[in-house]
Amino acid sequence: MDLEVMRGLSTKAETKVLLLVLDGLGGLPLTPDGLTELETAETPNLDELARRGVCGLSTPVAPGITPGSGPGHLALFGYDPFRFEIGRGVLEALGIGFELLPTDIAARGNFCTLDPKTRFITDRRAGRIPTEVGTRLCDKLGAITLPRVEAIVQPVKEYRFILVLRGEGLEDGLTETDPQQVGVPQLPVQPTRAEASGTANLLNQWLEKAHELLADEHPANGCNLRGIARDPGLPQLPDIYGLRCGAIATYPMYRGVAQLAGMEVLATGDSLEDEVDTLRTHWSEHDFFFFHVKKTDTAGEDGDFQRKVEVIEHFDQLLPGILALDPDVVIVTGDHSTPAVWKAHSWHELPVLLWSRYIRPDEVTAFGERPCMTGGLGHIHHTDLMPLAAAHAGRLSKFGA
Amino acid sequence: MDLEVMRGLSTKAETKVLLLVLDGLGGLPLTPDGLTELETAETPNLDELARRGVCGLSTPVAPGITPGSGPGHLALFGYDPFRFEIGRGVLEALGIGFELLPTDIAARGNFCTLDPKTRFITDRRAGRIPTEVGTRLCDKLGAITLPRVEAIVQPVKEYRFILVLRGEGLEDGLTETDPQQVGVPQLPVQPTRAEASGTANLLNQWLEKAHELLADEHPANGCNLRGIARDPGLPQLPDIYGLRCGAIATYPMYRGVAQLAGMEVLATGDSLEDEVDTLRTHWSEHDFFFFHVKKTDTAGEDGDFQRKVEVIEHFDQLLPGILALDPDVVIVTGDHSTPAVWKAHSWHELPVLLWSRYIRPDEVTAFGERPCMTGGLGHIHHTDLMPLAAAHAGRLSKFGA
Repeated sequence: MDLEVMRGLSTKAETKVLLLVLDGLGGLPLTPDGLTELETAETPNLDELARRGVCGLSTPVAPGITPGSGPGHLALFGYDPFRFEIGRGVLEALGIGFELLPTDIAARGNFCTLDPKTRFITDRRAGRIPTEVGTRLCDKLGAITLPRVEAIVQPVKEYRFILVLRGEGLEDGLTETDPQQVGVPQLPVQPTRAEASGTANLLNQWLEKAHELLADEHPANGCNLRGIARDPGLPQLPDIYGLRCGAIATYPMYRGVAQLAGMEVLATGDSLEDEVDTLRTHWSEHDFFFFHVKKTDTAGEDGDFQRKVEVIEHFDQLLPGILALDPDVVIVTGDHSTPAVWKAHSWHELPVLLWSRYIRPDEVTAFGERPCMTGGLGHIHHTDLMPLAAAHAGRLSKFGA
Repeated sequence: MDLEVMRGLSTKAETKVLLLVLDGLGGLPLTPDGLTELETAETPNLDELARRGVCGLSTPVAPGITPGSGPGHLALFGYDPFRFEIGRGVLEALGIGFELLPTDIAARGNFCTLDPKTRFITDRRAGRIPTEVGTRLCDKLGAITLPRVEAIVQPVKEYRFILVLRGEGLEDGLTETDPQQVGVPQLPVQPTRAEASGTANLLNQWLEKAHELLADEHPANGCNLRGIARDPGLPQLPDIYGLRCGAIATYPMYRGVAQLAGMEVLATGDSLEDEVDTLRTHWSEHDFFFFHVKKTDTAGEDGDFQRKVEVIEHFDQLLPGILALDPDVVIVTGDHSTPAVWKAHSWHELPVLLWSRYIRPDEVTAFGERPCMTGGLGHIHHTDLMPLAAAHAGRLSKFGA
């Protein structure tokens, strides 16, 4: 949907929308005749909500396209991921609570191991050094100075950090240095637009100085810069829908994308129970909550079918406590599929469950990929979810006379 | 899908994709409560593949739009048929193995019968003269000379031929001469763009000379020019997807469109068994095969329900031999529907069967239009098939971080 159309239709109401996102929820059977993770899980509460609600399958980005977490969440929040793009540097920066300015250029940094003689990359993650080591190295790199601009370095986790250039005249449109394989040299940062050549030069100067400072370190004697970009300046959800939006997520990237969309990111503990507590504490303050469950995806990526089943079951046990808050609209889905058998994000559609007092009921009585195939929502797209949520919340006026 | 996005995401893998196209596959029941051709056919092997795979219905071009063979196949190969258009002259030329240059203008020619006095068309196919007669007439027309450009005439089959203008300064954007009805005069070739007026003049001169040369012939004392166009310069499938593509088809037009898409057109005998032999012989040489079955469409066009059933059953018997080659992804569908009861191409959706180790299974246990309505693929578009095939073949990387 065109966001300007939505902005024009949105209207006030005293209703609350709850978007429950189980990251990587969609799955596949382990054997041809088997069940998916969600179908295997004992989910009496999700099943009951499916019975009372309406189900379907949703394509996160486009048929056959496997979304990264950024595009997957953009689509969930109603943004066309082909039109709006977020650099990974920006996401990581916001995710650690870094206050990014609209003119900043942010890069995700990865410490890596370089062959001392050839300078070829031998390990793209520097043996996954612990966070303490990464933090010490970031302190070291923080001393680098560049002409006219500030170069801020902040650790993220393990081998990952962010580099933010701050100052006048910085431009985006910059390529990554990570060749995505070992046994080859790093790539220089290159401008994809003429205006960005100055910024590319600054980043290459920074890299040179970084490698001097890291020369005696082991295994992290080098670093790569990826996803170099600035804040894409997304239209803000509170402006579009008139919703006060709160985000509950434990992992930096999801907190980052929620903030970019204009949500208030709420401080929360790490466990699912903590997240539910956070939701309860802030329930009166917001009209829309994005509630993110990370561990379904982690288990899928690890190829651990059973652990993914258990995370889903854990979430199911907490669902009654969530529903007791009495939301007006509930959506349960994921940002993309992460089948344990595929051990990575995949292109498969997501099961979607929509409940409100005004849904049109279907015959689905269990929440699972197969039941959702014949659900009343049919096959939709993630960008349909926000308009559907707003409509069911009585927050969209009539289009046209 | 934007082909540039696909090009950016495509990645190498050691997997093989098999696109099995039964031309005009989609059908209708003969009586309101009857079965379609596909549902009537005994297809134990397709049914078993449907049981193991995922099914759905696919719109070839757009709801209500009946595709010609060109747009139907363009969509199958992932090209938006509204954006990419192939003139029929170009298809026919490539189909007979004519080496078309990018600057050539190609027209499909049809011998016709004109009333000697009024010059009105009395038979648009000149009584379907035999190929030998058509060939002799083409030799005659080959003698026509035009100022500055070459005019090449080649027989295709029966009353059909191609005319290719070759030289400097030729432009496309030209209307056809066939009024699509009898009892009316031919139309002149007219330019739809100012730049093409010189080329229109040349074609009208050629037609005048052709009619002089054919004046004493009977019944083919005239000819029409249709689908006058040049090579559309399609983005090439091997470049977009990194696939070595082979095409197995017995009929010129399908070989032509496959070649335009960048496939290697393989020499094959005419029978279905020959086509399977060709597939087997070349199996190691390509990553993607387009395998075309023509006779389903011919039977449908002839209104011969039973013969269409038999062609489908014949194909089904050969399917185990095809699957024994161990493809990683198999798609079975058609380029458009040709219901025997309609005796022509139609707009109806196509049944689609997709199999790979990574499909999400559904409850469909037979390959037919009705079972496909509740299949797990839902209702998709033909242009989704190539992205889905590439994804299931592990040949697409993640979109965005």
